[in-house]
Amino acid sequence: MSAIITLTTDYGVKDAFTASMKGVILKINPQAQIVDITNDISPHDIWEASYTLRSAYSHFPKGTVHLAVVDPGVGSTRRPIIAVTESYYFVGPDNGLFTLIYQEAERIRVHHITSTHYYLSSPGPTFHGRDIFAPVAGWLAKGIPSGNFGEEITDYVKMNIPSPKATPNSIDGHIVHIDRFGNIITNITYKEIQLLFPDEVDPGAFTVGFSGKSIKGLKKYYAEAAPGEPGVIINSSGALEIFMYKQNARTSLSVKRGEAVRLMVSR
Amino acid sequence: MSAIITLTTDYGVKDAFTASMKGVILKINPQAQIVDITNDISPHDIWEASYTLRSAYSHFPKGTVHLAVVDPGVGSTRRPIIAVTESYYFVGPDNGLFTLIYQEAERIRVHHITSTHYYLSSPGPTFHGRDIFAPVAGWLAKGIPSGNFGEEITDYVKMNIPSPKATPNSIDGHIVHIDRFGNIITNITYKEIQLLFPDEVDPGAFTVGFSGKSIKGLKKYYAEAAPGEPGVIINSSGALEIFMYKQNARTSLSVKRGEAVRLMVSR
Amino acid sequence: MSAIITLTTDYGVKDAFTASMKGVILKINPQAQIVDITNDISPHDIWEASYTLRSAYSHFPKGTVHLAVVDPGVGSTRRPIIAVTESYYFVGPDNGLFTLIYQEAERIRVHHITSTHYYLSSPGPTFHGRDIFAPVAGWLAKGIPSGNFGEEITDYVKMNIPSPKATPNSIDGHIVHIDRFGNIITNITYKEIQLLFPDEVDPGAFTVGFSGKSIKGLKKYYAEAAPGEPGVIINSSGALEIFMYKQNARTSLSVKRGEAVRLMVSR
Repeated sequence: MSAIITLTTDYGVKDAFTASMKGVILKINPQAQIVDITNDISPHDIWEASYTLRSAYSHFPKGTVHLAVVDPGVGSTRRPIIAVTESYYFVGPDNGLFTLIYQEAERIRVHHITSTHYYLSSPGPTFHGRDIFAPVAGWLAKGIPSGNFGEEITDYVKMNIPSPKATPNSIDGHIVHIDRFGNIITNITYKEIQLLFPDEVDPGAFTVGFSGKSIKGLKKYYAEAAPGEPGVIINSSGALEIFMYKQNARTSLSVKRGEAVRLMVSR
Repeated sequence: MSAIITLTTDYGVKDAFTASMKGVILKINPQAQIVDITNDISPHDIWEASYTLRSAYSHFPKGTVHLAVVDPGVGSTRRPIIAVTESYYFVGPDNGLFTLIYQEAERIRVHHITSTHYYLSSPGPTFHGRDIFAPVAGWLAKGIPSGNFGEEITDYVKMNIPSPKATPNSIDGHIVHIDRFGNIITNITYKEIQLLFPDEVDPGAFTVGFSGKSIKGLKKYYAEAAPGEPGVIINSSGALEIFMYKQNARTSLSVKRGEAVRLMVSR
Repeated sequence: MSAIITLTTDYGVKDAFTASMKGVILKINPQAQIVDITNDISPHDIWEASYTLRSAYSHFPKGTVHLAVVDPGVGSTRRPIIAVTESYYFVGPDNGLFTLIYQEAERIRVHHITSTHYYLSSPGPTFHGRDIFAPVAGWLAKGIPSGNFGEEITDYVKMNIPSPKATPNSIDGHIVHIDRFGNIITNITYKEIQLLFPDEVDPGAFTVGFSGKSIKGLKKYYAEAAPGEPGVIINSSGALEIFMYKQNARTSLSVKRGEAVRLMVSR
């Protein structure tokens, strides 16, 4: 049984929130190896957490417990849950945070955490990250079966995520993430491009349009683009990405998450 | 014996300071599990370090060594110390950093670290975090008794921390911390409120005043407050906190650490 | 065999890059202890990575695998390498990142990583940090001999680093780093000062000039300098450093990395 627990939160690392969760986990399970995916999710940004967790989780060993807490509705009636896939456990609030996991999983089983004897007691209102999610992750990684924490549910919350839309000669998507280098990542993936254009297409026949701009051709490597010129690439996660070699494309092109992007082919 | 060592410093994680300390600890004690409480304390801010350490330390397993270094007076005559409570070790400079620990501990024993054979040698003036505190923490976590590092002292330094002041119908405190979400935390705690108002008081009978503003009533959950309206809550550490639901209260209310806050009750 | 792996990257901790590398390492080598030196190197800043790694690496236990990725030329023809010194392994791109290590090592052996069966497969172009360097570090720390990853090479890339220049009464150097406290660090070291001035020199006889300013005398401790006055010190790494006690010297003196600094002695 793996005793690796990852953290994805918007708690930051300047306050004591994240460290308190780690302490709670280690008190229950001193053998746990805790790895930060990130604690720097923008406050309350459930999408960003979902996207970042999806990008990282599958690289960890089978049995890893992925603990994720971005939880603007804490204290309301939203439920604490454990989601179990064929390879991993996910612990967090039932607010859509695991939507991208549900999409990728072959099998999914979700439990509503109700066994309060696994909780930590708190001097004030519950800090769910520290008092519910951290102890549950600690016990899960110690081998307590997920069924012990509560009943299975099927009406767990999923975010409504717009899919790319294909016409015979184009795919309409949008910007889903901008990384620290300023690379602009879209929801148009290699799989969809292959599906729409199963015949080998000349990379030069593609055009990417967004925000009144257009870029011709697909590159294979960042270093192929001329300095100061934006380029388009299928990135290492298989997604269509707009970049500038050794520069920050976000700053130069001033785009935002959510903006529309169209991939066209001329043939 | 637990071999967990936590770090609370103002060294940041961009320079090599923090990593050098970790290397030194692991060279002495390769089994140590090092957990960052935070290395992002504002430079030289002893209060912030003290507050953050106090918020996190008790969640860790018994026997944890809490290493804390915020040390504007490094190189002067201030002493390096080990403080031992009933459950934990604290290693750092004798500059008041552990004041809140002294307040909470049932028993406290403080040693002046003078056994220089535990130190690391340095090519220049001593970098105490790396050359004194890290090795001492590494050896402590390996089981060396605290008495081996130096004599017990009783004149260790305590910060002068103003306590909340109670009148029959109010408690006067101040802002002690503002967290990454912009929540404004005061030194008025649930304990003091209970002491002053032992009879159940209607939460609506409380008013919190600060900086020319006033907020009526106490909430139980963040989600109870109307959007855009500041609310008051007893937070998960038992402290009176001013917040705005899904918003940054610090930005909206423009307050600073140290400002006065008064809790009043009308009955 | 130590199973400690350190990370020095410009991937940040907000995106999934760094966490994905950690996952890959732990999948191969669940016993590995991963320690961040820093993931906050300024994007594409090979010098900063080199400098930071050099400041930290030697504090870690013998056998540690130091994984470093700052790689603006990813995807071009630059080679992935393993550098082996008498005490450590270094894994990363052959772009000069390890120049300061080569300078300090007594023995050095460099292998061009070509054994692609150690690589991870990727859905798009290779993310070398995750798909090449992380798995190689994981396998190295697991005991696979460095020779198994590829042939030894001797034409590995070294940055051209200007050395300080000495005249009979002065040493000309430059600013190599500015730390989070605003301390300004030069490439003039204690060793060079001793070499040029083997006789004990009165610390008051030194003058440091830079950017049209000059500071007389060397201090032994930060606390020796008057508040608001810049001071000069031989720091804990043995380098000449310009500082302001409890203040940010970079902000006050507005200097930049690369600017010239001259140490003069009057005798």
